[in-house]
Amino acid sequence: MKGSEGLLATAAAAGVDICFANPGTTEIPLVEAFDQVDGVRAVLGLSEGVVTGAADGYGRMTGAPALTLLHLGPGFANGIANLHNARRARTPIINLVGEHASWHQAADAPLSSDIESLARPVSGWLGRTTSTSSAPEEFAEAYVAALRDRLPATLIAAADHMWGQGAMPASAPARPERPQVDELRIAEVAKVLSAGRRPVLLLGGHALENAESIRTAVRIAAAAGGDVLAERGSARVERGPDIPPLQTLPYFPEAVTSALDGYTDLILIGARTPVSFFGYKGQLSHPLPDGLNVHELADADADSLTCLTALAEATGSAADKLPRAERPKVTAPTGALDANAIAAAIVLTQPEHAIIVNEGVSSSAAYPAIADAAPAHCELALTGGAIGMGMPVSTGAAIACPDRAVINLQADGSAAYTVQALWTQARESLNVTTVICSNSRYRILDEELRRAGIDDPGAAAASMTSLGEPALDWQAVARGFGVQSTRATTGEELLNALRAAQAQPGPHLVEAVL
Amino acid sequence: MKGSEGLLATAAAAGVDICFANPGTTEIPLVEAFDQVDGVRAVLGLSEGVVTGAADGYGRMTGAPALTLLHLGPGFANGIANLHNARRARTPIINLVGEHASWHQAADAPLSSDIESLARPVSGWLGRTTSTSSAPEEFAEAYVAALRDRLPATLIAAADHMWGQGAMPASAPARPERPQVDELRIAEVAKVLSAGRRPVLLLGGHALENAESIRTAVRIAAAAGGDVLAERGSARVERGPDIPPLQTLPYFPEAVTSALDGYTDLILIGARTPVSFFGYKGQLSHPLPDGLNVHELADADADSLTCLTALAEATGSAADKLPRAERPKVTAPTGALDANAIAAAIVLTQPEHAIIVNEGVSSSAAYPAIADAAPAHCELALTGGAIGMGMPVSTGAAIACPDRAVINLQADGSAAYTVQALWTQARESLNVTTVICSNSRYRILDEELRRAGIDDPGAAAASMTSLGEPALDWQAVARGFGVQSTRATTGEELLNALRAAQAQPGPHLVEAVL
Repeated sequence: MKGSEGLLATAAAAGVDICFANPGTTEIPLVEAFDQVDGVRAVLGLSEGVVTGAADGYGRMTGAPALTLLHLGPGFANGIANLHNARRARTPIINLVGEHASWHQAADAPLSSDIESLARPVSGWLGRTTSTSSAPEEFAEAYVAALRDRLPATLIAAADHMWGQGAMPASAPARPERPQVDELRIAEVAKVLSAGRRPVLLLGGHALENAESIRTAVRIAAAAGGDVLAERGSARVERGPDIPPLQTLPYFPEAVTSALDGYTDLILIGARTPVSFFGYKGQLSHPLPDGLNVHELADADADSLTCLTALAEATGSAADKLPRAERPKVTAPTGALDANAIAAAIVLTQPEHAIIVNEGVSSSAAYPAIADAAPAHCELALTGGAIGMGMPVSTGAAIACPDRAVINLQADGSAAYTVQALWTQARESLNVTTVICSNSRYRILDEELRRAGIDDPGAAAASMTSLGEPALDWQAVARGFGVQSTRATTGEELLNALRAAQAQPGPHLVEAVL
Repeated sequence: MKGSEGLLATAAAAGVDICFANPGTTEIPLVEAFDQVDGVRAVLGLSEGVVTGAADGYGRMTGAPALTLLHLGPGFANGIANLHNARRARTPIINLVGEHASWHQAADAPLSSDIESLARPVSGWLGRTTSTSSAPEEFAEAYVAALRDRLPATLIAAADHMWGQGAMPASAPARPERPQVDELRIAEVAKVLSAGRRPVLLLGGHALENAESIRTAVRIAAAAGGDVLAERGSARVERGPDIPPLQTLPYFPEAVTSALDGYTDLILIGARTPVSFFGYKGQLSHPLPDGLNVHELADADADSLTCLTALAEATGSAADKLPRAERPKVTAPTGALDANAIAAAIVLTQPEHAIIVNEGVSSSAAYPAIADAAPAHCELALTGGAIGMGMPVSTGAAIACPDRAVINLQADGSAAYTVQALWTQARESLNVTTVICSNSRYRILDEELRRAGIDDPGAAAASMTSLGEPALDWQAVARGFGVQSTRATTGEELLNALRAAQAQPGPHLVEAVL
């Protein structure tokens, strides 16, 4: 068989069932192989930001890598921003980047570039095919690396290695094991927790994806007289009636310091030491209160649940009853819309087991603040700060979970980055409802201007934060890409629009005018 | 003054008057400086592919660098594909990439990444600010490098260096000189031309941007009994009644070989040895006929006109009359549209001194084939093969030349990549008419599938080349981004639509349905 067929057959045997793609000439042999090899479905995106973001959404929901198929350096480059988010989300992805035939690379044809240099910053593993016969094995390496590292792995596939004959599928690669629990570390943290001080457990990464991890952490904290917090901007947070509500660390560094004030010990479980999103004059990179001791129970590579279970045993809290928790009360929004009203409307209309993708940017914080009032759901946040993730991640999450409703709480500025994702949602009839928080501004920049002491920006600065003149017509944009849309200016209209969107299959866009 | 103000004042003093921008928090000090420093106008793009492509269009038309303002690694990454095209176009650009405050970089905040690794493949010069006081001088270095190398230069500017006080503008950097003419090389080529063989001069790069270069080359070739060809995919080609028509080298390698068949010597003037766009089975990277001798008169760094003038003197052809040239006859298209009809409609309606941006992809070749029948104009082509350049390059060209009409001959697949450029066209009231060659396909991939021997693609392969289901509604997309639009299905309708667009200021989109 061809190299491309051997590679895809190896992927299919490993259980990889989806490839988000925007191929070109160098990828023709792989395009052809989709029809020759069973088991891997190709989904087209109109730009590579859609392709890589969709793979991130798919990987966050399944824990398994999707393939991406990208066209040489420039095609890869268009997908880097969402791979950056995927790297921060610790999402396994396997990028297949087409490359000129091996004998053609020295000619420096127009589309040639240094793909490795582009790929290294967002790839945990990076390699090239070296021949037709070895390509399937090289793919298997990338597969194992993506799952082991929980990071994008990038395989650059030369066209002649793909079109050449004589490949055989590699034996199905095994999923790598997580590192063993570090007993010494468990014992040390248990000792900290038993010291009668005031600890706080900070959950992040995969610890938030698992209901039992959250429950176990809450039991441990309660027994130790402490609390549990959730890291901000997490890949996936599970919530529901049987999951204790968690407060999320705030965004600005001074607020992080306040939130951690009064605690003696910070225990990291799949989370990093809190870091300020940006460096602000006179503030710290790590905005911790003085004297707070930081301990790491489980890093991002560890299995958080196993570590927490061991810690619960060590602290004797494994069988404790969960403390009774207050849940927020949410009332139906009426009249003019703001971020709180939009969040409330979503909470009140989201169906059971919805997937909430939150790229609300300046409108994002309102949702997690009341989300514990909603039915069981998970929330996928902007992990790496590279805007333009919401529409593609929603697309990939909907492909991964066709039976669940996806609701994308989406800022307008970031929506415009990868708006092409709407087309894939239409083409694949995905159950995604995009709620555009339409304020016709990069409002987060208005806030940052104020923080920088610029209360009255000049005309040039003001023009850099305004998306008006002309305001985007989101209903027209949606129609252009084949998606039905509604416009809501009040809480009542928004509730109606969201209920109507949930009642009908396929994608919808609701412009919520702020 | 602040570092950002010192930097911008240095830019203004050097004559840099435009900055295409999509800033974020780390760029706030530069955003603020646009109001403090006179002379540099900021133009917002809704995604960085728009920003860098606009800078390419601006640089191709002016020969001078525009600034881009980009938000850390991910913001830069979104602009790489069009910087790749700019690199192939040899366009000077100065990228200002915001970066975390110097003291915050070690904290690996969510938006941190290896910006150098991302920037190197598309930057002729790459550097970082090292302090507030040195930032203006470091900018001056980038400026000189961009013009010297005719390439993007990338300066990574740390937020604290920009917000810090104590900078002074650097003295205005001088424009670097072109390398001197190599007399020995002139003499050698003159000897080849006088040998009574059959030479062909291949013009590329800056040689095609200058009417006198083209006339001089044609005189030299005529005197030597040879011909002149134009490189394919050039940054800018000038055409008009007083410029001799040139044939362009074809796209596919076997056609290149045919076009060069019968010549004894190939003289490169600002052009590279012809290279196949992709490597095809059984074909050469450099598809030259056997026995063709290649000589380089002027590389991309040289001043082509000076070299050609010297060669004309050396061959005694400087004062020769230009040979009489046939120009194509173009008749008004009627009935159903195809690529030829669209090209004819543009040729027949384009006003004097129009700028034609050609990203027609599979519909692109029809225009240059008849463009010598049009009034004086220039054509900007896809240099690096990274699709999504047409809409942004048109935007930048219109900013550079507000008194000229810009007509963007645009494929639909590539239009969808950077469709956000329409919004900047609307916001800035730019005279851009976008003609979408709407075939609802990646038709170039259909051709490549056939070339790969796949005449009857399977369902998966077919779905990778189809942009139907749903077809993009280009009129709705245009309206969404604030641009007026028309739909044309016949030659008559297209002629009317183009005339109407030219009669009204501001941007228009015409969907030409194939």
